[in-house]
Amino acid sequence: MDEGSAAQPRGVFAAALTPLSSALEPDTALFVAHCRWLLERGCDGVVPIGTTGEGNSLSVRQRMALIEAIAGSGIPMSRFIIGTGSCALADAVELTRAAVAAGAAGVLVLPPFYYKEPSEEGLARFYSEMIQRVGDGRLRLYLYHFPQLSTVPITPGLIKRLLAAYPRTVAGLKDSSGDWPYSAKLLQEFPGFGVFSGSEGFLLANLRAGGRGCISANVNVTAPLAHKVFLAWRDQQAEQLQTDLDAARAVLDKYPLPSALKCVMAAISGNPGWNHVLPPNQPLSEQDGRQLIASLTALAQMKGMLGNHG
Amino acid sequence: MDEGSAAQPRGVFAAALTPLSSALEPDTALFVAHCRWLLERGCDGVVPIGTTGEGNSLSVRQRMALIEAIAGSGIPMSRFIIGTGSCALADAVELTRAAVAAGAAGVLVLPPFYYKEPSEEGLARFYSEMIQRVGDGRLRLYLYHFPQLSTVPITPGLIKRLLAAYPRTVAGLKDSSGDWPYSAKLLQEFPGFGVFSGSEGFLLANLRAGGRGCISANVNVTAPLAHKVFLAWRDQQAEQLQTDLDAARAVLDKYPLPSALKCVMAAISGNPGWNHVLPPNQPLSEQDGRQLIASLTALAQMKGMLGNHG
Repeated sequence: MDEGSAAQPRGVFAAALTPLSSALEPDTALFVAHCRWLLERGCDGVVPIGTTGEGNSLSVRQRMALIEAIAGSGIPMSRFIIGTGSCALADAVELTRAAVAAGAAGVLVLPPFYYKEPSEEGLARFYSEMIQRVGDGRLRLYLYHFPQLSTVPITPGLIKRLLAAYPRTVAGLKDSSGDWPYSAKLLQEFPGFGVFSGSEGFLLANLRAGGRGCISANVNVTAPLAHKVFLAWRDQQAEQLQTDLDAARAVLDKYPLPSALKCVMAAISGNPGWNHVLPPNQPLSEQDGRQLIASLTALAQMKGMLGNHG
Repeated sequence: MDEGSAAQPRGVFAAALTPLSSALEPDTALFVAHCRWLLERGCDGVVPIGTTGEGNSLSVRQRMALIEAIAGSGIPMSRFIIGTGSCALADAVELTRAAVAAGAAGVLVLPPFYYKEPSEEGLARFYSEMIQRVGDGRLRLYLYHFPQLSTVPITPGLIKRLLAAYPRTVAGLKDSSGDWPYSAKLLQEFPGFGVFSGSEGFLLANLRAGGRGCISANVNVTAPLAHKVFLAWRDQQAEQLQTDLDAARAVLDKYPLPSALKCVMAAISGNPGWNHVLPPNQPLSEQDGRQLIASLTALAQMKGMLGNHG
């Protein structure tokens, strides 16, 4: 493991939304503007084309277009960990190659999620084939543990196996299980392994336990609040800042993602097109949208969220 | 609905295996030979690139190559219902367009299976967008109900909604739930709707209840036995033939699919390359393989399965 390397991603990463046209094609210009906005508002990095980015609802062609847009944006590629997982090995390889060639800091890779209860050996073979086919020493792979959606957990046994075989390449894990003790266990069992929490609710806990930070959906709109936690995590005041961040999270978590976040972006930017989501996700109803915006506005934190959007 | 049309697919359909090279690329020549062999051995049709065909483990490029291979094979396209589902709407559209353009009798389409508990409205929007984007009156869509793997059931409410909007296009459903009463309920609720059982174990029951037959994995190797059931389903002797078919099924069902079926194909054909499977699936262990072949050989039915393979 590359423990201690200065180049390691760390801090608050937004699992970036993918803005869509009315024809449900990615709006790559608005997407790049959104990434830039997230970085300006306190994100240390951006993770496009994950669960929040509707990555699995996008075709390989559409995901390649997003990677190309990032690569051509002028934003330093060290700020990006790109979602490149797929049930299909060859698709995961194609996307990962493109991300690595573009210079991304890493890739976030779901296990293949169609077949249920695959063997640890079968999962290891998936990642191993992927790493070997990409065949690039620059690859930094973050495993994506999100059993509620993928149905396929990334177990300590699998991590151990992959770290033994690819100690430089297998860089970390995003833990979206919501099970904080699992993150803590991984941090203890694999020192230096780059564990990001999938929720900003565990941002402080994760940093204090030796983790890297969070890769979170909600920070699409709460980045300034999360940034304050990251800046202050060693200080006593961090706990209050985490509490402020949690208050915004508690409101957002009542509504389905990514629709709720897109609704907030529509309100922030004044662009109703932000509400487009790919099926099977559905836009928030008008009533839910009004309620959500009212609840957020009622929080002092909304002041920090509102602002111009590119 | 097109009830009574002579062109409606009916009978024993094999959810065809996808033979792979050692580099895990589809072996399109062997695939076409396998389809031909299945039809010669009593299958009424073939369903490529579904669950058994490792469709979700194949990239869009690889699936397109298989569709092209079928289209160029000279086998009548009326024999094919092609698996074209994807979590990504645009991928499902691209694959379905290719299948329809090639003249396939239908397509078998999984619901998007990454997001959990999608709304009925969101699922209806997925299929509706797909149908409209394909925009071809020749499209015949079979919904794929396989909640154990997709996690997303095709509910009667969804079927009703889609039949109301697209009565000619929405042609039927493959029920892989293993829950025979569910098939029976659909046959009763939607007269003329083309319900195929996902298991040959319900072949006779399905036909007698007004269904179309089965689309089954096991008939890759038990087609001659299933064919006898289909020929005789109106007769009293059909029950014994179904019992014979079930005996072979009971052996196969002890082992994981598609690996077990590929192992049998390797034994039948003498080509060990048949054992290649895409991760996360794993080939059968040598011991399991020996045991499986011994169990099948012990059945008189094995005689009917063994034979030359292209």
